[in-house]
Amino acid sequence: MNSFERVTRKDIEFFQALMPGRVLISEDALFDYTHDEMTEYGYYSPEAVLQAESAEEICKALKYCNERRIPVTPRGSGTGLCGGCVPLFGGVVLSTQRMKKVLEVDVKNMTATVEPGVLLLEFPKALEGTGLFYPPDPGEKTATMGGNAMTNAGGMRAVRFGVTRDYILGMKVALADGSLLSLGVKTVKTSSGYSLIDLMIGSEGTLGFLTELTVKLIPEPKYNLSVLMPFDDLDKCINAVPEILSCGCEPTAVEFMEREVIACAEEYLGKQFPDTSAEAYLLVRLDGMSETALEQSLGTLTDTALALGAKDVLLADTDERKESIWSARGAFLEAIKGSTTSMDECDVVVPRNAIADFARRLAAISGASQLRIRSFGHAGDGNLHIYVCRDRTGEEEWKTRLSEVMGQLYLAASELHGQVSGEHGIGHAKKGFLRESLGERQLELMRGIKAVFDPNGIMNPGKVV
Amino acid sequence: MNSFERVTRKDIEFFQALMPGRVLISEDALFDYTHDEMTEYGYYSPEAVLQAESAEEICKALKYCNERRIPVTPRGSGTGLCGGCVPLFGGVVLSTQRMKKVLEVDVKNMTATVEPGVLLLEFPKALEGTGLFYPPDPGEKTATMGGNAMTNAGGMRAVRFGVTRDYILGMKVALADGSLLSLGVKTVKTSSGYSLIDLMIGSEGTLGFLTELTVKLIPEPKYNLSVLMPFDDLDKCINAVPEILSCGCEPTAVEFMEREVIACAEEYLGKQFPDTSAEAYLLVRLDGMSETALEQSLGTLTDTALALGAKDVLLADTDERKESIWSARGAFLEAIKGSTTSMDECDVVVPRNAIADFARRLAAISGASQLRIRSFGHAGDGNLHIYVCRDRTGEEEWKTRLSEVMGQLYLAASELHGQVSGEHGIGHAKKGFLRESLGERQLELMRGIKAVFDPNGIMNPGKVV
Repeated sequence: MNSFERVTRKDIEFFQALMPGRVLISEDALFDYTHDEMTEYGYYSPEAVLQAESAEEICKALKYCNERRIPVTPRGSGTGLCGGCVPLFGGVVLSTQRMKKVLEVDVKNMTATVEPGVLLLEFPKALEGTGLFYPPDPGEKTATMGGNAMTNAGGMRAVRFGVTRDYILGMKVALADGSLLSLGVKTVKTSSGYSLIDLMIGSEGTLGFLTELTVKLIPEPKYNLSVLMPFDDLDKCINAVPEILSCGCEPTAVEFMEREVIACAEEYLGKQFPDTSAEAYLLVRLDGMSETALEQSLGTLTDTALALGAKDVLLADTDERKESIWSARGAFLEAIKGSTTSMDECDVVVPRNAIADFARRLAAISGASQLRIRSFGHAGDGNLHIYVCRDRTGEEEWKTRLSEVMGQLYLAASELHGQVSGEHGIGHAKKGFLRESLGERQLELMRGIKAVFDPNGIMNPGKVV
Repeated sequence: MNSFERVTRKDIEFFQALMPGRVLISEDALFDYTHDEMTEYGYYSPEAVLQAESAEEICKALKYCNERRIPVTPRGSGTGLCGGCVPLFGGVVLSTQRMKKVLEVDVKNMTATVEPGVLLLEFPKALEGTGLFYPPDPGEKTATMGGNAMTNAGGMRAVRFGVTRDYILGMKVALADGSLLSLGVKTVKTSSGYSLIDLMIGSEGTLGFLTELTVKLIPEPKYNLSVLMPFDDLDKCINAVPEILSCGCEPTAVEFMEREVIACAEEYLGKQFPDTSAEAYLLVRLDGMSETALEQSLGTLTDTALALGAKDVLLADTDERKESIWSARGAFLEAIKGSTTSMDECDVVVPRNAIADFARRLAAISGASQLRIRSFGHAGDGNLHIYVCRDRTGEEEWKTRLSEVMGQLYLAASELHGQVSGEHGIGHAKKGFLRESLGERQLELMRGIKAVFDPNGIMNPGKVV
């Protein structure tokens, strides 16, 4: 482990001269930066927070910190769930909160260029009237686009449209030595040397600091509808997924949800879900360029689902009905969080045909653990979100049981040829599980790569590798 | 530059014991391995060719060569155009020609696992009856899937379906030290550490040797048709592309071609092209899950194209008509090659809205050079294939003029924010242009990465970085 320097009065003066009025040092101001959305992993205070406004400032701050051996932790909105933006070793947090400009929307090339702090929920406004849209759709809409890029966020539409990686064409990235790389461009394909841009995507700020992002846009499908399908049990529900994916209806999203999680969301939202008759549900979204095309997809989907044991096919084609279903789906995380004193999460991804197997193992693990476990997820891509709830468990017991349960969950995922994280990333919380999953040789290569980009180890230390 | 050892009699004995009957050493047998499809870049003889049959053999051969400092050049079918598989420093060529097994087609997870030597043209046979297909469609069908992965090959369907990178889920890769990495799995998304698999894709065998590939399949569109649209001139033709891409017809391929290249193909094939009335053509392919959906797309495309100056919209909806158009398109490279004594190629990619600009500069460069230049390409993704023909130019003049022309072409691409290679890769022929395009800092990072994976520099030396 590298040893780092503490931030001194002189350092603060340098930062203040570089970013006047945008250096936070009071204990109160720093508190927000001590954790992300998963406080289970503890609180770590930075010594200063720098609110950068330009790539130039970022390069200068990095160069300075690199020479002084001050750790730098990048941070967007802090909506992560694995402690990726938490300053484990103090030092400075370099925030993109003030870098929220959409720099360009290029309709002809179907690209947009943004600063890293643009929020997912704000970006669509910049595309209004262009007929174009940005498909990645992670659940957390207050996340930044930069954060999404650096964790390779997924989201519900990944089934049809792919993940964040698939939409990143260009990046500007500041390295620890203060140099600024321009990676990729507005071309949609390339075979020009090692893909440094793909290495940056999902690297969680451990290799460089993202200062600008160019994304691919696609023509916005003009019509969409959602379909809710109740099933007698989770097994039937999940077993229907592969055929739904291959039947030709081209679903945009395929989510599964169990009754108990829906009940949790109903209580949280104070609103009734359209159907509560069944144990398990599939929620499918279809998008299309024409109503005719959409009707055909719906016909194919309906036939397929009924043949596979769906008890009904409930169509949501008005905004109101869509809202009643998707608002419940969108509230799952907050609803579960609100139902317990504390919780830990697991975001494994398994091959699609292994979801049912995994769900069975999950039920067994949950039963044996005496801890309440809630899950939901992206049936269409094999990514499950599992929340282990502490409720009123005593501190010592919680720690012991949680650690057992987590070990069992990752073991199950690994045995089913899955991976540690589908979309939330590794941060510091999942490092141990990553090592177990990939083995020492791969970690060694990753550490070697890290040393090439960041020889002093100041970039988001203690994360990923 | 590393210094390498020559292959000795003892080395040959080791290889023969490892791969009995599959070690080539006679001058005749070695000749095929001295070049790829672009002989302009010279001939370099290996000292031995090893025809591996398993990952185990590959690991052992690499470990041995690494200890002995013998360079190893990986080779599939040798259909490359940049010298990527040519053994610049002698040593051994490690061939995947005998690794042609499709190991698994997993219909439920929509994946297939293949050995690296499976040919593109053979792979579809393994998918027959599954309703699934593998979208990447590079022009050279006798290329191997492994070669496609290691150059991130593109192809015509990239407009709608993406490039090879987008379809690679898993890889097994042997490193120089003989260890075997298992990268990725059958999951469709992941945020689990640095994407080593994306680093391998497009690395042209300079980081590791691909021994197994798992690719994503998608439901095969049941219907397709092609549309040929003549335009008065290339400008109008290329200017129509952005609107065709964003009009909602979701084209699979958008190719442009000029009359003179078509004439070349007509002569080569001894067959007439369906239309020869115009200066320039767009060729668009549409795929759809239903005839209705396809008809709607065709309607949208027709309206858009006619409004943008297409003189006609010629529909090819029978196999015969499709064949007459696409066989011409498929023959361009061979036809141009057959029309000249020798040629060099340039495979730049520019943003889509810059193709017309690039085409104008190309015309100017060609005019000034007194060399015949032929081009065609993927209008839908900005990737142009440009062939500079030697014809009867004398040796010295050819060298001088060619070098000038190439410099001008890459400069034009760079000024239009393009990249050195869209899909053919860098090999050794494009290294200088890559350095100019990316700058020293990026090359330095790439060399750093190379040293992490291959500290002795035995893997495909002299290529890419």
